[in-house]
Amino acid sequence: MRIGIIGAGALGLYYGAMLQHAGNEVHFLLRRDFEAISTNGIKVFSINGDFTLTKVNCYQNAADIGSVELILVGLKTFANQSLIELVRPLIGEETAILTLQNGLGNEDILATEFGAERVLGGVAFLCSNRGEPGEVHHLGEGRIRFGEATGGITERCQIIAELFTRADIPCETSDDLTRIRWEKLVWNIPFNGLCALTGKTVTELLQHPPTRQLVTRIMHEVITAANQQKTTLQIDPEPFIDRMLRASDAMIGYQPSMMIDRMEGRPLELEAIYEIPLKRAEETGSPMKQVDMLYRLLSVGEPARD
Amino acid sequence: MRIGIIGAGALGLYYGAMLQHAGNEVHFLLRRDFEAISTNGIKVFSINGDFTLTKVNCYQNAADIGSVELILVGLKTFANQSLIELVRPLIGEETAILTLQNGLGNEDILATEFGAERVLGGVAFLCSNRGEPGEVHHLGEGRIRFGEATGGITERCQIIAELFTRADIPCETSDDLTRIRWEKLVWNIPFNGLCALTGKTVTELLQHPPTRQLVTRIMHEVITAANQQKTTLQIDPEPFIDRMLRASDAMIGYQPSMMIDRMEGRPLELEAIYEIPLKRAEETGSPMKQVDMLYRLLSVGEPARD
Repeated sequence: MRIGIIGAGALGLYYGAMLQHAGNEVHFLLRRDFEAISTNGIKVFSINGDFTLTKVNCYQNAADIGSVELILVGLKTFANQSLIELVRPLIGEETAILTLQNGLGNEDILATEFGAERVLGGVAFLCSNRGEPGEVHHLGEGRIRFGEATGGITERCQIIAELFTRADIPCETSDDLTRIRWEKLVWNIPFNGLCALTGKTVTELLQHPPTRQLVTRIMHEVITAANQQKTTLQIDPEPFIDRMLRASDAMIGYQPSMMIDRMEGRPLELEAIYEIPLKRAEETGSPMKQVDMLYRLLSVGEPARD
Repeated sequence: MRIGIIGAGALGLYYGAMLQHAGNEVHFLLRRDFEAISTNGIKVFSINGDFTLTKVNCYQNAADIGSVELILVGLKTFANQSLIELVRPLIGEETAILTLQNGLGNEDILATEFGAERVLGGVAFLCSNRGEPGEVHHLGEGRIRFGEATGGITERCQIIAELFTRADIPCETSDDLTRIRWEKLVWNIPFNGLCALTGKTVTELLQHPPTRQLVTRIMHEVITAANQQKTTLQIDPEPFIDRMLRASDAMIGYQPSMMIDRMEGRPLELEAIYEIPLKRAEETGSPMKQVDMLYRLLSVGEPARD
C-alpha cells in the first residue's frame, strides 16, 4: 500500500518504519530529521529487534509526495493549525486518513475539511522516543486501537487492520471511536499533565501514596465524564483503573510525551488533552474539577492561542 | 530589652537588626552567616533606608546566649524538630516566646513544652530576602500582627507592641491568634504552593486569567474553612479577596518563600502551611479539596517525615 506519514515524530517514524519494513511503499514528510534520513535512512532500536531502513522516501514539502492510499497522522496537536495544509496534497480519490494524534478534536478538523467518510481515528499504546536524528527507540507496547470517524466497522477498517498485523503492529478495530478516545484519556489526562507539571515520572507519582491516590481520583473523574458521552459501553471504574495502574506500574521511569515536551521547551498539547475534554464533560453535565485545576496550572506560561 | 533571635533567616535577621538598631540588646543564633556577621556585622538594605550594625552578638550554640526576656522565632517550620532544643536554653523566669513562623502548629509545639502562658504567635507581612552572608534585603511591607496563644490582650502584648513601634516595625495586637493565622493562610496557601509548583511568580499567576481565577477559588475555599474555626469574626470573602488580590498585584515579580525554598533545593513548609490546615478544615466539616490536590502535588519528591 502507498502510505504517507504526516508528523514523523517518535510515533510516526516508528509506525512508518514498521510499515515499510513489511514491504509497503511509505513516504515520510520530515523536518528535523530530513538530512539524516535522506543520507543514512532510519534506525529502529526496538525491544522486538533492531533494524535499519537504508532507502527511505523523504520529503520536505507535502506537495512532493503526491496522492497516497493511506495517510497516517502523528503530528503534535499543538501544530494542528498546519494539519489541513499538510494533509491536503496527499488526498486522492480513495485516500483514507488515520489520525493517531492525542486527545479529542483531531477527527473533527479533518472531517470538516475532507469529509467524515475519509477519516479514521485511533489511539496508540506505544512507548517510544526519538534519539539522534534518524533514530527511533521503541521501548514498549505498540498496539493501536482505531475506528471510523462515522462509526461502524468498514471493509476499509479490515484492510488497514490487516496492513498493521502484517507489519507486526498489534491492532484492534472498534466501531466506537468516542469510547476508545475517552478510554485513552483516562490515562493521558492524569499522567501527561501531572508528570509535566511536577517534573516527576509515572513511576515517581505512583510510588508516592498521595499522588497515586490523586491519579486514581482523577481517573474516576474522567471515567464519570466518559460515561456521559455517547458511547456503546460504560466503563466500570474499579477494574478499569486497577488494570491501568498495574500497566503503569510496569512502565519503570516512563516520561509521558507532555513531560518531554515541557522539558524540551515545546508547547503542551493542552487543547486536545484538556480543553476539549473539559468542554465535552461540562456540556454533558459532568464537569471535571480536578482536571480543570490541573489544566489551569499547566496553562500558565504557555503560548497564547487564538 | 534583652532579645534572642532563633532562626535568623530573611525574617529573623531583618527584625533582629531593626530591634538592635533601636537600642535593644539582641542576640542572634546563626549558622550560615556566623563568620560573616561576626567579622563585618549585618548590612540591611531597606526601602526605608539602609543601615549597618557593626557589632553584633553572634552565637553558634543557643546555650551560649543565656536567658532573655523575649525570644523571636523565625525558624523554617521544616526544622521544627529542633525548635524545642534551640529555644530551651534562652528560657528564664519571665521569658516570652513570640513565634513568627509560617502556618499552624508552631504555638502548640512551644506551649506543650514551655506552657501556653509563655507563648505568643504572630504573622509577618514582610517581603525580604537574604543576599550575601551578613546581608538582608527589605523589599516591602514589614507589618506584624500578633497575639497571645491563650487569647486576650495582655500587658505583655502592649509592651512588645511598644518595642516594635519604637523600632519602626509597624504592628498590631490581636486577641484572636487563630483568626490572624487563618487570615494569613488565605494568602499563603494559594501563593506559596502554586508558585513553588509552577515556578512562576505571584505576578505571573495573577496576570494569567486561568490561574488568577484558581487563586481566587482557593482563597474562597480557605475562607470557608477559616470561618468554621473558633474565631471571633467571620471573614467576608469578596472584599477580603479583593483587597488581598490588589495588594498582591502590587508585588511585582514577587517570589514567595516556598518558591525560593524549592528553587534552592530546601524542603517545603508543607506541614505548617498545608497538612495542619487541611486537618483542621476536615475536622470542622469544611474539607479543602483544591488545597488537598495542591498539597499532594507539592509533596511528591519531598523528604519523608515521621
